[in-house]
Amino acid sequence: MSSDAPADLRHVAVVGGGIIGLAIAWEAGRRGHRVTVVDPAPAGGATHAAAGMLAPASELHYQEEALLALTLPSSEIYGSFTTDLEAASGMRTGYCPTPTLVAAIDAADRGTLADLRAVQSGLGLGVEELTTRQARKLEPLLGPQLTGAFLAPDDHQVDPRAMTAALRAALAQQPGTRMVELSASALLHGDAEDPSAVTGVRLGTGEEVLADEVILANGLGAAEVSGLPERVDLPLRPVHGDILRLRVPEQLRPLVTCTVRGLVHGTPVYVVPREDGTVVIGATQRENGSAALSAGGVYELLRDAQTLIPAVAELELLEAICRTRPGTPDNAPLLGRCRHPDGSEVGGLVMATGFFRHGVLLAPIAAMICADLVAGVPLSVELAPFRPDRSSFHPARQSLEERQMHELHAER
Amino acid sequence: MSSDAPADLRHVAVVGGGIIGLAIAWEAGRRGHRVTVVDPAPAGGATHAAAGMLAPASELHYQEEALLALTLPSSEIYGSFTTDLEAASGMRTGYCPTPTLVAAIDAADRGTLADLRAVQSGLGLGVEELTTRQARKLEPLLGPQLTGAFLAPDDHQVDPRAMTAALRAALAQQPGTRMVELSASALLHGDAEDPSAVTGVRLGTGEEVLADEVILANGLGAAEVSGLPERVDLPLRPVHGDILRLRVPEQLRPLVTCTVRGLVHGTPVYVVPREDGTVVIGATQRENGSAALSAGGVYELLRDAQTLIPAVAELELLEAICRTRPGTPDNAPLLGRCRHPDGSEVGGLVMATGFFRHGVLLAPIAAMICADLVAGVPLSVELAPFRPDRSSFHPARQSLEERQMHELHAER
Repeated sequence: MSSDAPADLRHVAVVGGGIIGLAIAWEAGRRGHRVTVVDPAPAGGATHAAAGMLAPASELHYQEEALLALTLPSSEIYGSFTTDLEAASGMRTGYCPTPTLVAAIDAADRGTLADLRAVQSGLGLGVEELTTRQARKLEPLLGPQLTGAFLAPDDHQVDPRAMTAALRAALAQQPGTRMVELSASALLHGDAEDPSAVTGVRLGTGEEVLADEVILANGLGAAEVSGLPERVDLPLRPVHGDILRLRVPEQLRPLVTCTVRGLVHGTPVYVVPREDGTVVIGATQRENGSAALSAGGVYELLRDAQTLIPAVAELELLEAICRTRPGTPDNAPLLGRCRHPDGSEVGGLVMATGFFRHGVLLAPIAAMICADLVAGVPLSVELAPFRPDRSSFHPARQSLEERQMHELHAER
Repeated sequence: MSSDAPADLRHVAVVGGGIIGLAIAWEAGRRGHRVTVVDPAPAGGATHAAAGMLAPASELHYQEEALLALTLPSSEIYGSFTTDLEAASGMRTGYCPTPTLVAAIDAADRGTLADLRAVQSGLGLGVEELTTRQARKLEPLLGPQLTGAFLAPDDHQVDPRAMTAALRAALAQQPGTRMVELSASALLHGDAEDPSAVTGVRLGTGEEVLADEVILANGLGAAEVSGLPERVDLPLRPVHGDILRLRVPEQLRPLVTCTVRGLVHGTPVYVVPREDGTVVIGATQRENGSAALSAGGVYELLRDAQTLIPAVAELELLEAICRTRPGTPDNAPLLGRCRHPDGSEVGGLVMATGFFRHGVLLAPIAAMICADLVAGVPLSVELAPFRPDRSSFHPARQSLEERQMHELHAER
């Protein structure tokens, strides 16, 4: 996919150095483009907190089935993407194709998961029901309050901190790629032929980075960059989450052999094992406007994780942090080009934000899509449901086709 | 107490720069002695974690009544000690003579606290029983599960981090005082007249600090210094504790107006408010050999603190750490001079360790006692119950008087 440099090489400015921006930058770079990544603190946002579950099946939520058009192909290419990245960087990514076990604590939890499994199966997702005996055989440290379990064999994991370190190392070795550790304040315009086209980005220092394409991949920050296309309103909202990292004492290793998710009296919790003997426990989801680490959130995580796996009480708490994910009204990303009110595309700009809970999983497919958009080649995915301006225009201004699509989406 | 410099000025080496060592160094310095404090990380151990409750009454435990001989006078001089320290350093210590409210959650907790109150009253400690209505009037955010409460008007608080910062600032301004940020490895001997006397301390670098008196105030580290007097065995054991610091959001201030301790289904928990709008929540007490921050310990602190004060769930978790206190078999400090088997005192050495839960409260009295020992003036406190070698000698080697005292102590 990357070895033959295309004839039409371009300069791509990627605003945002989280896992999405770094993956896009690396993919664009290995296709031969010059790349500038702009981020004041690369990999320091939601990526730094993320557990790294790659779970199209067990992350499926009602009314979010459209996301499978992105999550399934991204899951399929994850192994080859990380293999290539590990080769390019000489570093590990923590990609691990172990399954995910989903455990139900009370009868209501089991009912909820069984209902969800029916939907998952109907969509062709492989989720198997296990007896509690089978579940305990896989994960002997599961707690006594288990009423049921399911296995998602295709839901894997990666280590987002390792993967972004590998991406940064690969970018550092990539000719024509540079990292600018500054913020971006505005999109530049001024193409003589197309005055609305984006021609680069202005940094917080006032310096300008001219580019053939600007890719806005800076999460919640995308809505704060000035010079966005007229009438394009990015409906991003902050969704906060508390997440813990813990060390498993030698005598308890392995605490779990694969990602274990639980529904604990209606509240989801997960325990993701890392190669280094630590586990990640998450994640609360709060929209209370506070990016502070919540004492109540930490308490609930520890409580529910102990219900799922009592030995969690014996672990060493290494880190407790809060990070903020960029949510959207339909929980799907804002991905692709924006349009003018007349339906024509805004030149020089690609949006790649609003990945919410799915940023780590969707990084490879977002990288492919953005690189394909830059190259102007046909896409492997129908982007219409993810258009960044899908909620920006009043219906009266939309074409009939667009309106129908919008309504279809709203009805789901 | 400190203004007139005595005629016989000496060089005092204080090993250990926790709150005990720093207080001793400051007191010795303000009496005119030259002082060298030796600690690789001053104020970085148990002091760094300590909540700073000054609670002779509510910290009273059965069979630890002998400690009142130290805790009560230290509590009485705390105000003047911190007033002097604040004047000398120009910094605040967080000393705050507010009372302590002790709350019982279930009927058994109330019974336990009522029994303890009978003992406290019998010892002349002022502890008043409150109705739950009175308790809620004092602290409106107390939870619904309150069955009883007690008020200890003489149990105050200080901020150990502020106080040690003030002590270090005062020491930095004190002529003849220096801080050596290195570890101590051995006691030096070699006095021609008394070969067993201590003449200084060897540092980890091999460098020697000669001194007229060495004061070992380095907590658990005291037992690891080589060259201790023959047959003196310091019975120190590590007691680990997890402790949390949390920020109270503006709309919930003040969360509490004074220190609130709870007995929550048999487990003690406390919430100590700081002037800066944070609170300290502690403390677990573990002797499982692990100095790692315990996930189960943090969980229990948050659970019990929320039972006591439900709004704790709304706080921001700023810090969770574990530190280790030096415990002793009878939970009393090892304070004073050691003796040779013939009963004569070892020259040049004062022990000041094993302060366990009481280091912050006992810092002023320990400073006075050590400075008095150095000066050779009569002590205000009978030190026999706290002799550092009280458990070191086999009864057959002890004098009758010593044996009786030992047995008396063991019977308590």
